Amino acid sequence: DIWSNSPAGVGVDQELISAVPSYNPNFVSRNFTDAEIAYCQKQPSPPSSFAARWVGKEAAFKSLGVKSQGAAAAMKEIEILNDEAGVPTVHLHGEAKRVAEQKGIKKVVISLSHSDTTAIAFEQRALH
Amino acid sequence: DIWSNSPAGVGVDQELISAVPSYNPNFVSRNFTDAEIAYCQKQPSPPSSFAARWVGKEAAFKSLGVKSQGAAAAMKEIEILNDEAGVPTVHLHGEAKRVAEQKGIKKVVISLSHSDTTAIAFEQRALH
Amino acid sequence: DIWSNSPAGVGVDQELISAVPSYNPNFVSRNFTDAEIAYCQKQPSPPSSFAARWVGKEAAFKSLGVKSQGAAAAMKEIEILNDEAGVPTVHLHGEAKRVAEQKGIKKVVISLSHSDTTAIAFEQRALH
Repeated sequence: DIWSNSPAGVGVDQELISAVPSYNPNFVSRNFTDAEIAYCQKQPSPPSSFAARWVGKEAAFKSLGVKSQGAAAAMKEIEILNDEAGVPTVHLHGEAKRVAEQKGIKKVVISLSHSDTTAIAFEQRALH
Repeated sequence: DIWSNSPAGVGVDQELISAVPSYNPNFVSRNFTDAEIAYCQKQPSPPSSFAARWVGKEAAFKSLGVKSQGAAAAMKEIEILNDEAGVPTVHLHGEAKRVAEQKGIKKVVISLSHSDTTAIAFEQRALH
Repeated sequence: DIWSNSPAGVGVDQELISAVPSYNPNFVSRNFTDAEIAYCQKQPSPPSSFAARWVGKEAAFKSLGVKSQGAAAAMKEIEILNDEAGVPTVHLHGEAKRVAEQKGIKKVVISLSHSDTTAIAFEQRALH
């Protein structure tokens, strides 16, 4: 049955911006890389930018078909930076990168959005 | 014009968790399979889990390019179960399966998310 | 590093329906085509339909990897119409069409959803 052998390949996640504790320096330093922090702090609404990246990290784990397990180290292994054109881009490191390569995943494409209240992320992995 | 011949291939759906009447046994038994009900009732928040699967079924119809028509039978033909790794997986049955095969759709990949208030689902069909 | 060379290919956008000023005729005529306006005005909730198309246009720009720049003309170049089966379909015109062709993008597939309060769109571009 092909339907019972369907590997995950997409990931969606959402969160109320107010539920992501970006006012807590320990939370931020544990879960975001220096480059992510520098970017978010320059944005018009840092809490919205941190929240968007937070859901982006969770959605990336879903698209990879693994659980984030709430491990802080793992969250930093999913780094979301904007490229020259301003497009959010996923960079994998460490164990996350190893798992992706093992599964034959060539890249993870991402889109982020936030309204006044809610941040949402969508991700899709590509095998070629 | 290639732009006017663009078959649907993705599906998104969202709903307030409070708007999905999972407290109604008739609604549940009409729209969810026994395996789905058993899974949702074991979760920390059954209403959130039922709502996530409900929007997952709607998004699946959108990704297949057909309308759900609110038909109860049709909703059961889109069965969303977690695989061994805990990843939500779409199993098609009956008419939904027949339509997918007719369109050459090999699988539907899915991701689910719920915040405190809202459930959201994203789906993508794959032709190979 | 393949991870630093990841072109955008998906787009998500959301907005509170109340934040899209579809009650303003100037906003509507600047941003929607005649066919889109005719469709939305026939729907049960025109504000919801206009909002869904509005976020659909924004998500389309994201999936193309370009910025909408808030240019009114650009918004009309992303036209979202339903096909015979009732499936929302993206039609590109003008500069948006030219950029897509230049990037080798063959089509953009889309899904729209609105709850009582929020409209959301997801889009994916296809290279073949």
